[in-house]
Amino acid sequence: MKTIKIGLLGLGNIGTGTYKALEMNRDEIEGNAGAHIEIVKILEKDVDRDRGIEVPAEKFTQDPDEIFNDPEIDIVIELLGGVEPAATFMETAMNHGKHVVTANKAAVAANYPRLTEAAAKNGIKFNYEASVGGAIPILTALKDTVRANKYTEVLGIVNGTTNYILHMMGTQGMSYEEALKDAQDKGFAEADPTADVEGIDAANKLSILIALMFGKYIHPKDIPTTGITEITKEKIDEAKSNDCVIKLIAHATLKEDGELDYEVRPTYIRTYHPLAGVLEEYNAVYIKANLVGKMMFYGPGAGPLPTASAVLGDVMEIARSMK
Amino acid sequence: MKTIKIGLLGLGNIGTGTYKALEMNRDEIEGNAGAHIEIVKILEKDVDRDRGIEVPAEKFTQDPDEIFNDPEIDIVIELLGGVEPAATFMETAMNHGKHVVTANKAAVAANYPRLTEAAAKNGIKFNYEASVGGAIPILTALKDTVRANKYTEVLGIVNGTTNYILHMMGTQGMSYEEALKDAQDKGFAEADPTADVEGIDAANKLSILIALMFGKYIHPKDIPTTGITEITKEKIDEAKSNDCVIKLIAHATLKEDGELDYEVRPTYIRTYHPLAGVLEEYNAVYIKANLVGKMMFYGPGAGPLPTASAVLGDVMEIARSMK
Repeated sequence: MKTIKIGLLGLGNIGTGTYKALEMNRDEIEGNAGAHIEIVKILEKDVDRDRGIEVPAEKFTQDPDEIFNDPEIDIVIELLGGVEPAATFMETAMNHGKHVVTANKAAVAANYPRLTEAAAKNGIKFNYEASVGGAIPILTALKDTVRANKYTEVLGIVNGTTNYILHMMGTQGMSYEEALKDAQDKGFAEADPTADVEGIDAANKLSILIALMFGKYIHPKDIPTTGITEITKEKIDEAKSNDCVIKLIAHATLKEDGELDYEVRPTYIRTYHPLAGVLEEYNAVYIKANLVGKMMFYGPGAGPLPTASAVLGDVMEIARSMK
Repeated sequence: MKTIKIGLLGLGNIGTGTYKALEMNRDEIEGNAGAHIEIVKILEKDVDRDRGIEVPAEKFTQDPDEIFNDPEIDIVIELLGGVEPAATFMETAMNHGKHVVTANKAAVAANYPRLTEAAAKNGIKFNYEASVGGAIPILTALKDTVRANKYTEVLGIVNGTTNYILHMMGTQGMSYEEALKDAQDKGFAEADPTADVEGIDAANKLSILIALMFGKYIHPKDIPTTGITEITKEKIDEAKSNDCVIKLIAHATLKEDGELDYEVRPTYIRTYHPLAGVLEEYNAVYIKANLVGKMMFYGPGAGPLPTASAVLGDVMEIARSMK
């Protein structure tokens, strides 16, 4: 078996989860990839932090060029988060002939044309399955497995923080503030929850879904977006009395005239709809398409190991294509 | 673009759906495949039946060797149904160097080692996504996209007929006999419903899931199987009073000692479990795995166009690999 060498950008929560998952499930991963997979260099300043994994000190670097210029590195995994320098690093890696894998929805959504064009120009693979729905393999399904369809609609619960908050308000009678505090205590919401509760994260993911499903790039800033900060217990009770639950839905639909409608906003969902059963911090993406009718994918939308599952799935796909 | 030529075995409901879907969505399919896709020969006796599609008469043949011996045919799609001659035809096609795509769970489950070995020996692709869960791309996910995981459990609602019957008994107060009659009237159950209501079809699908997830082949006849014929309104009401619904579940779980438990039987499912929300004739496959935790795929488990979606997804995957 050949060895595929990886340069990893960032050893935070997701990077650590990816490193750990590769150690835990090496047989499964290398068996599918048909290759040894080795993370050979890691761009990370914080060398000394105890992450519960053993990383040889010589793997760390603070100079990204050491990764871009290493002719032995086949794949760069970008797990820095944030738009920059992540997007520029990904483009630079592509221009050096590296395949790129990322979980970074903000960087992908804000730079979709630039990054996909750089990938095409350099003839390399650009895989970003983990950027929407975490572990759920929705992007691969939409791009390939279900691509025989004409897509007409997508409804996504693509932000775990807001789904958790709405779930606790709906089932435990918590106020918005209580549920947000509870989410923060459990690690489902950040200290500054703005990007989640204002719907910005969901808009990033909807931008990526629209690009893949409908071949149109809409910058996330151009997606009408309403978060959940105005949702009160009264509104949740009103929904209940109408046999509905309130979910933050990322929605796009192709109208009969060929125009696309898209929006992120809190939405009434009938209690018998599959999306109503997406509880706690789970994510789900529900699509309509002309052959399959209706289909839904459900799973964990975040977390180090679930995200690592999708990142490593992308790595395996590249490895299989390199045979 | 090159042209990929297909020989189709069988132009019944699913074959007709596949032919129709290729005409409906040719741009999507050929765009993803990177090739023209042409069904050039069809093994089918019934030439004159009105199927709502226009098939040039010269495409029909009644001699399978005309397909196996045609050096221009790249892929054979088997949609005859039943174990034989379907399985022998698939093996013969493989031995002639053809890639094989099928939707035939009975033939795949009864011959899994023989068919996968023939595929490996001949270095061709053997894709059978449509054989479990219809349109739901569960097998590709388990085989590749989510394969970085160690799988521990699968719970599948993989038979639409029985799910429809149990749904109507649970929501409309029908008896088993009334619900079966209703399913037959709506085309969700066959005149002889034995294979569905006795759980045989679900056992075929569980055999395939076990082979893919756990690398073990269990012949469907060796899977303990209980159907739904003994389910009464009283049992459904008793489940309800325990906040449960009854679903026919195909279940396999890897025990701590490495042994596999497997069974098909009617099972109590808590009403808040995602599988409880799988209504009418829909299918879903729920898995547990060490990175993703819990994940579920939901969609139509049967029907000509949904099945065609999976069959054509398999064809596109082969076409992409032939580049």
